[in-house]
Amino acid sequence: MNNTRILLARRPAGLPDRSTWTIETVAARRPDDGEFLAEVRYVSLDPAMRGWIKEGKSYIEPVAVGDVMRAGGVGEVVESRHPDFAVGDHVIGISGVQSHWVSNGKGVQRIDPGVDPARIPLPEYLGVLGMPGMTAYFGILEVGAIQEGETVLVSGAAGAVGSLVGQIAKLKGCRTVGIAGGPAKCAQLTDEFGYDAAIDYKSQALYPALKAACPKGIDVYFDNVGGEALDAALAFLRLRGRVVICGAISQYNEAKVKGPENYLSLLVNRARMQGFIVFDFAQDYPRGMRDMGRWLAEGSIVSHEHIVKGLETFPETLLMLFDGRNQGKLVIEV
Amino acid sequence: MNNTRILLARRPAGLPDRSTWTIETVAARRPDDGEFLAEVRYVSLDPAMRGWIKEGKSYIEPVAVGDVMRAGGVGEVVESRHPDFAVGDHVIGISGVQSHWVSNGKGVQRIDPGVDPARIPLPEYLGVLGMPGMTAYFGILEVGAIQEGETVLVSGAAGAVGSLVGQIAKLKGCRTVGIAGGPAKCAQLTDEFGYDAAIDYKSQALYPALKAACPKGIDVYFDNVGGEALDAALAFLRLRGRVVICGAISQYNEAKVKGPENYLSLLVNRARMQGFIVFDFAQDYPRGMRDMGRWLAEGSIVSHEHIVKGLETFPETLLMLFDGRNQGKLVIEV
Repeated sequence: MNNTRILLARRPAGLPDRSTWTIETVAARRPDDGEFLAEVRYVSLDPAMRGWIKEGKSYIEPVAVGDVMRAGGVGEVVESRHPDFAVGDHVIGISGVQSHWVSNGKGVQRIDPGVDPARIPLPEYLGVLGMPGMTAYFGILEVGAIQEGETVLVSGAAGAVGSLVGQIAKLKGCRTVGIAGGPAKCAQLTDEFGYDAAIDYKSQALYPALKAACPKGIDVYFDNVGGEALDAALAFLRLRGRVVICGAISQYNEAKVKGPENYLSLLVNRARMQGFIVFDFAQDYPRGMRDMGRWLAEGSIVSHEHIVKGLETFPETLLMLFDGRNQGKLVIEV
Repeated sequence: MNNTRILLARRPAGLPDRSTWTIETVAARRPDDGEFLAEVRYVSLDPAMRGWIKEGKSYIEPVAVGDVMRAGGVGEVVESRHPDFAVGDHVIGISGVQSHWVSNGKGVQRIDPGVDPARIPLPEYLGVLGMPGMTAYFGILEVGAIQEGETVLVSGAAGAVGSLVGQIAKLKGCRTVGIAGGPAKCAQLTDEFGYDAAIDYKSQALYPALKAACPKGIDVYFDNVGGEALDAALAFLRLRGRVVICGAISQYNEAKVKGPENYLSLLVNRARMQGFIVFDFAQDYPRGMRDMGRWLAEGSIVSHEHIVKGLETFPETLLMLFDGRNQGKLVIEV
């Protein structure tokens, strides 16, 4: 039984190119006592990965050079010496970017065997019911603290997190405005994700577009991109507005981050800007998954996965996140 | 009876120079029914004044060109046709930069006649018991939400607000570190205002100095200056840290504000950056004044006023705030 895996070969300076990674196939390790071996079916690709391969202090240890690249994954147990996991179980956890995953079960979640896997496809456990789903749920509800009738602006609005943030805010009675790149994504925002308005940052000037789309100003800005969009949103922030810092994908590959020049809008508007990490809400995931699962089953929210086949495509597929070619949650089918 | 007053002649581009102002002496208006006339004794000079003469939307209407410059002041009633104010009363309010002030009493506070004016000098009603005092009190306690044992960093630490923030945080059991410019102010921080450590931004590199002075990192950063200090503080922010945006004096005269490049520290550290305006706490001023008055009387906090004589010095005296020549609360004695 062979394990194909992607290792971090070296830390990239800007965009992680092909030389960042090593692809190798080795004999799969067999599980020891207290471990299981799973075949990984889907691997999650997330903007946060860029941070994980950076040197230095962050909210999580960086991936060491020479180690298997960190990733969330969903797989099926094929051999078990662990009392809580049986052959045939579907499991979710930090599998790494590899085809075969040995785990001691720590932090691993078993998919409820009562759930029909045909009804909730496995990739959704990496999207709407996974890290992006929980990020959207806790980010907009707990950190953004949205109220009915408020105007919510989302950047990266067609992405895995952004598409869900908009739908949750809409469910809660907010006016939702999304920023995305290109006409196809913008059409998807209004047609598929229920946004009240879409702004194409590639063809529209942000300030006049925001002024038109948010006539009362912005109560909550959920930021996935940083850069110009953050500054434009700050300019239209309302009294006691909230800026949720979820990510800054426009800045991750830059040597020098662009700081928000309009940050004094926080002072004028008695507003706050707050960062969060989804892992902080881990003890509340059951509530998040219950709500998201129910909304999904009811059809109140839709999930959109962008599936690319083949683990060996990882180096190129990852780049889709940074040039915006993915539509919805990006996963690799192993 | 003549009124000497300072009018806004035109909006300045950078630093407000002499041509920004008109000084004139006119006959003082006599009070109508429901008004009083006070002789202004002291006028408060505050960094916020730079914002008040800027065009455009802010938390308060800008001063109109041709109008008397807005300022807090303390005076003595010399003629009254208002039922609540009698000749001889000392009053605090938005007097404007002028020697004679006619008011309908709205927003005006009468100094408790039971208080011995020799024991609490009038300028302190513009400092520790005035707007800077309330700014420090509510900013560090309510917005900063300091806890015993935390490390609190303050910029503009020798100023009217900063000197009080440090003392309040010290009273609450925090480690206090202040940033100020020059050896005289830094000596004052530790000797007079009880700071545990002082950093001279004019002679020390901020990053190593902060690392040495805040070995555990920074829990709360109270920012009066913006610019480099804000970035350096963000770099050393601790988990769930709070950045209180009170002002940004380093940026007020700049055409282009420097945004905080290290703002993603908010994400990594699940931290928040929040602005506030002291007027939002107006209904709680009595509590703030009671506490500050008691601490002052007990000697737990000290107040330091920098008094310059002569209303006509206003254009030059105001500039002291921007080049940092004042030590403590800057007031003009009329």
